[in-house]
Amino acid sequence: MTGTLPFDLAQDLVATAHALADAARPETLRHFRQAIAADDKTGDAAGFDPVTEADRAAERAMRAVLARRRPDDAILGEEYGATPGTSGLTWVLDPIDGTRAYICGAPTWGVLISVCGAEGPLFGLIDQPYIEERFEGGFGIARLTGPRGEMALRGRAARPLAEATVMTTFPEVGTAQDRAGFEAVSRVARLTRYGMDCYAYALVALGQVDLVIEAGLNSYDICGPIAVIEAAGGVVTDWEGRPAHEGGRVLAAANSQIHAEALALLHERD
Amino acid sequence: MTGTLPFDLAQDLVATAHALADAARPETLRHFRQAIAADDKTGDAAGFDPVTEADRAAERAMRAVLARRRPDDAILGEEYGATPGTSGLTWVLDPIDGTRAYICGAPTWGVLISVCGAEGPLFGLIDQPYIEERFEGGFGIARLTGPRGEMALRGRAARPLAEATVMTTFPEVGTAQDRAGFEAVSRVARLTRYGMDCYAYALVALGQVDLVIEAGLNSYDICGPIAVIEAAGGVVTDWEGRPAHEGGRVLAAANSQIHAEALALLHERD
Repeated sequence: MTGTLPFDLAQDLVATAHALADAARPETLRHFRQAIAADDKTGDAAGFDPVTEADRAAERAMRAVLARRRPDDAILGEEYGATPGTSGLTWVLDPIDGTRAYICGAPTWGVLISVCGAEGPLFGLIDQPYIEERFEGGFGIARLTGPRGEMALRGRAARPLAEATVMTTFPEVGTAQDRAGFEAVSRVARLTRYGMDCYAYALVALGQVDLVIEAGLNSYDICGPIAVIEAAGGVVTDWEGRPAHEGGRVLAAANSQIHAEALALLHERD
Repeated sequence: MTGTLPFDLAQDLVATAHALADAARPETLRHFRQAIAADDKTGDAAGFDPVTEADRAAERAMRAVLARRRPDDAILGEEYGATPGTSGLTWVLDPIDGTRAYICGAPTWGVLISVCGAEGPLFGLIDQPYIEERFEGGFGIARLTGPRGEMALRGRAARPLAEATVMTTFPEVGTAQDRAGFEAVSRVARLTRYGMDCYAYALVALGQVDLVIEAGLNSYDICGPIAVIEAAGGVVTDWEGRPAHEGGRVLAAANSQIHAEALALLHERD
């Protein structure tokens, strides 16, 4: 499943990815910002967890779409694990990336969807259902569709790290070593910001942020963002410069120059 | 300007606050997520700073509305300072709170508007133009109007700090002492999140977050949030439990119980 795909297959994969995101939206929104579970002790006692419920319902909805549209493709989902396929294509699904943001009511969580070949993501989406923003990339597409219309995605032009913005979700980053690596970069950067979850990757593709550095990721946390950022001209690797689609420590950059500058600092500390 | 205001005055103040937010929206959005300034070296050299430009244009637009609708009221604006008035009412305006979020493209900045009497805010708004969310509170109103319709604002029910979520914008918080105070609380809390700017206060009013703790604030950073959170049943004071509308160190809480628990920890460390 490498090289160029037939046009009609690519078209079908894009349409399927959008159908998946459309199916997930109502399920993720159903419990977003609802006070019920957190405030209802009875509900808590019965083990009702709104984010888990939304996560699972959204993945089930997406799997139902795939069963209908792409029954021969494999699936790797955060909630329901791996389902084998025969086509050589795998759909990698994270129904709610950023569950902590979700339970805080912050609109920085997202639905991550990608379709991967043997060498990684071919096409992917970062969907933010509350804002109604969808970032998509792959097969020549690099686009945001949102509340203020449509715009092309394009990573920022290269600038020195000393003039750059770097993001990660929480200051601990991961292990003490992970944190030290992140801080070796953030110490040089002009601006460091926290708390954006998968939305940070969307901001790289949007040309607003230069770097996102995270650790301890799973495949389903990063395949969607890889597709979107690469389509926008960015570079995503692990902290050794290798492919990142299997997760772990991730360095996402707006362009190859700042990727190289950050990678050198991460590597020194490792 | 204390006690109950005549109904028609209150109504006019509410309508004016909305007119101000409406006037600010296009000005703040004009430069949001535009790459021009950051990527155009010529622009940079000429001293063009998109967030400063948007900040000033939005405040000018709001001042023009006040000149027409409420010429006798005083104004305190982040960009153009204090303008005296004769009515006993002061409009406190922060055209873009969260300028760092703004320059990162994150939709966690907001337009903060409030109208204050001698004892603090009477009515206020937190407006997020990109998401098209408006949180308002005062004169019996406590409401969010957003992309998914309208909902009442109501702080979360009381729960122990050990089960609570606390937010601040960046982990340094302020001085070393400010940080120690914050950490005395966040260490006990179940979940600590960063990076939400004024949106964190909106999440308190929305019943999603229990506490926001910040330091080094100005009056215009906090008057709007005070009005909204108090209208939702929350409590906002400084770290000594005194009124917070003049800024400084701020503790915003979803309810009086968790306010008391956090205040005790902040006070011990002080």
